[in-house]
Amino acid sequence: MHDDIGTWDDDAIDLVREIRESLAALANDADLTCTLMQGCGSMGVECVIGSVVPRDGGKLLILNNGAYGVRMRRSCEAMGVPFVEMLDSEEEAHSPARVEEMLAADPAITHVAAVHCETTTGLVNPIREIGLAVGRQKRRYIVDAISSFGAYSTGQGGVIDFSAGPIDHLIGSSNKCVEGVPGFSFIISRREVMEECAGNARSYAMDLHDQWKGFERHGKFRFTPPTHVLMAFRQALREMHAQGGIPARERRYKENNDTLIAGMRTLGFEPLIPASIQSHIITTFLIPNPSFAFDPFYRGLRQRGYIIYPGKLTHRDTFRIGNIGSIDRSVIEGFLAAVKDFLK
Amino acid sequence: MHDDIGTWDDDAIDLVREIRESLAALANDADLTCTLMQGCGSMGVECVIGSVVPRDGGKLLILNNGAYGVRMRRSCEAMGVPFVEMLDSEEEAHSPARVEEMLAADPAITHVAAVHCETTTGLVNPIREIGLAVGRQKRRYIVDAISSFGAYSTGQGGVIDFSAGPIDHLIGSSNKCVEGVPGFSFIISRREVMEECAGNARSYAMDLHDQWKGFERHGKFRFTPPTHVLMAFRQALREMHAQGGIPARERRYKENNDTLIAGMRTLGFEPLIPASIQSHIITTFLIPNPSFAFDPFYRGLRQRGYIIYPGKLTHRDTFRIGNIGSIDRSVIEGFLAAVKDFLK
Repeated sequence: MHDDIGTWDDDAIDLVREIRESLAALANDADLTCTLMQGCGSMGVECVIGSVVPRDGGKLLILNNGAYGVRMRRSCEAMGVPFVEMLDSEEEAHSPARVEEMLAADPAITHVAAVHCETTTGLVNPIREIGLAVGRQKRRYIVDAISSFGAYSTGQGGVIDFSAGPIDHLIGSSNKCVEGVPGFSFIISRREVMEECAGNARSYAMDLHDQWKGFERHGKFRFTPPTHVLMAFRQALREMHAQGGIPARERRYKENNDTLIAGMRTLGFEPLIPASIQSHIITTFLIPNPSFAFDPFYRGLRQRGYIIYPGKLTHRDTFRIGNIGSIDRSVIEGFLAAVKDFLK
Repeated sequence: MHDDIGTWDDDAIDLVREIRESLAALANDADLTCTLMQGCGSMGVECVIGSVVPRDGGKLLILNNGAYGVRMRRSCEAMGVPFVEMLDSEEEAHSPARVEEMLAADPAITHVAAVHCETTTGLVNPIREIGLAVGRQKRRYIVDAISSFGAYSTGQGGVIDFSAGPIDHLIGSSNKCVEGVPGFSFIISRREVMEECAGNARSYAMDLHDQWKGFERHGKFRFTPPTHVLMAFRQALREMHAQGGIPARERRYKENNDTLIAGMRTLGFEPLIPASIQSHIITTFLIPNPSFAFDPFYRGLRQRGYIIYPGKLTHRDTFRIGNIGSIDRSVIEGFLAAVKDFLK
């Protein structure tokens, strides 16, 4: 991150090319194309929704079982994108059969958007099976994989399977499971659907098609990119490749998460979400009893070198622990020791 | 940039507070408030336009004499914000008297947006005098100062004078004259106008009011911020302060620019823009003769350690040289020696 490169120079063009190609390769399917978008993940999601749902006759079905589903709804409301919601409990994964019923019942729906890992709770939605339903009903499919891309298997038969779904646009972020730093999102799209959204966007700064065309034609961002963040991300991609790619990362995160949940259980903390839909990225734990206060717990762990997350549910007292990033089982064990020490 | 901090932690809250307060202090006027927005400068500009021009009865006058005026128009078109343009030649600054005439003739106009330094050419528009006209006509005033904030005097009687104008919203960027790295923009607003735009935005991810409320209430970004870029920016602000603030920076850039223009003249290159409206940020030079090719010139200078910019005009052959960043006269002299060496 210490080099300052010219955004119009060959160095930046090489940087952008390597990142776009590496991301498309990680997605592990032929004929994918990648667009980078400055800003945070929620900008990437809004960019896709605002760019691909047709102005004329488009309608989005939002699958909502958490805060990131709510964000999609708010983006639609602000941009005036017609939508309908399938609202599920925050503790329940979406049912692909119900998605298919909703699509069959409403032919006006043109696009479906789902969140893969809902970090509100840490649950994973069955995006592959939802995709099969969307495919049978011949609609377009958008997947918010911001928190999960890099940690779940891709390609034929994988969790993130572009051709089976088929996923038309998948949104990821620089600072999650690829282990870069925050500053941009990326959109991996099936090349054949990109031309559909020319001139359709509700934003100029976040126009997916225009941004993509800029990359395809000149290899450059249209507007100043966060070059230092891109440099860090390229390095993160190289390290990920050297470490064995997505399969190795998935194994490491699963081991982290298994160690975390087993260890927390022995300390008296139960996970909120059933194991069958629990992600290996972030876990919500129930506050064990009414006298247990989150704030001193947070401060006590922070003092010991660990930052955890507050809960995001309105109806239950919880907290969250993430286990992604450049950490392994020994770090989780150190964390568990810190919890134990605090509880003493 | 090497520290990884939690975006919800006290460290991030302190970081955001110091940056917001320092920026408002640099603007040197009472009762200003500052909003940070992830992404590039053009996102900051679109965020303001889309958030502050009322959905009901709003109309924006865009002062356009270059590529950044065009960007504002494109943002309006994409978002469906009603607008009218005052189009001037790329080589001419806007006339405040003509702005006032346009406002007097069209009472439907509610907001005026101007670009301070049009880096298409390097000219500066008279934003203070335009502001006085806007003030007399009682409209709201938006200034794109992305490339200039930090390099022009602020406060009473200064070039950037919030109360005289009055400027309602000014957009700046992390990677220009404050000398940080790219990754976010900032919007300095008069506090009293912020409440006006509640619930008005055409975007959720780039909703100025919602983002501001998040800072005011919790001291935090609503969505993941580019923490490493923010850390670099805080350091840049501290260095700027230690170096004598905006007045010292203005002097250094002016000296850089004077040295550049005088030196280039002796080497046979004439600036495009008259001295009276030439910024001290970036300068457009005319290609001296039809046999002079830009590409070998660019490559030759790059080889010698200097990156310049291509021209951005359609009707004249030009190139551009910026003189901002952590450089002084000795760097400009080194650059001039490199040009001389190349020409030989």
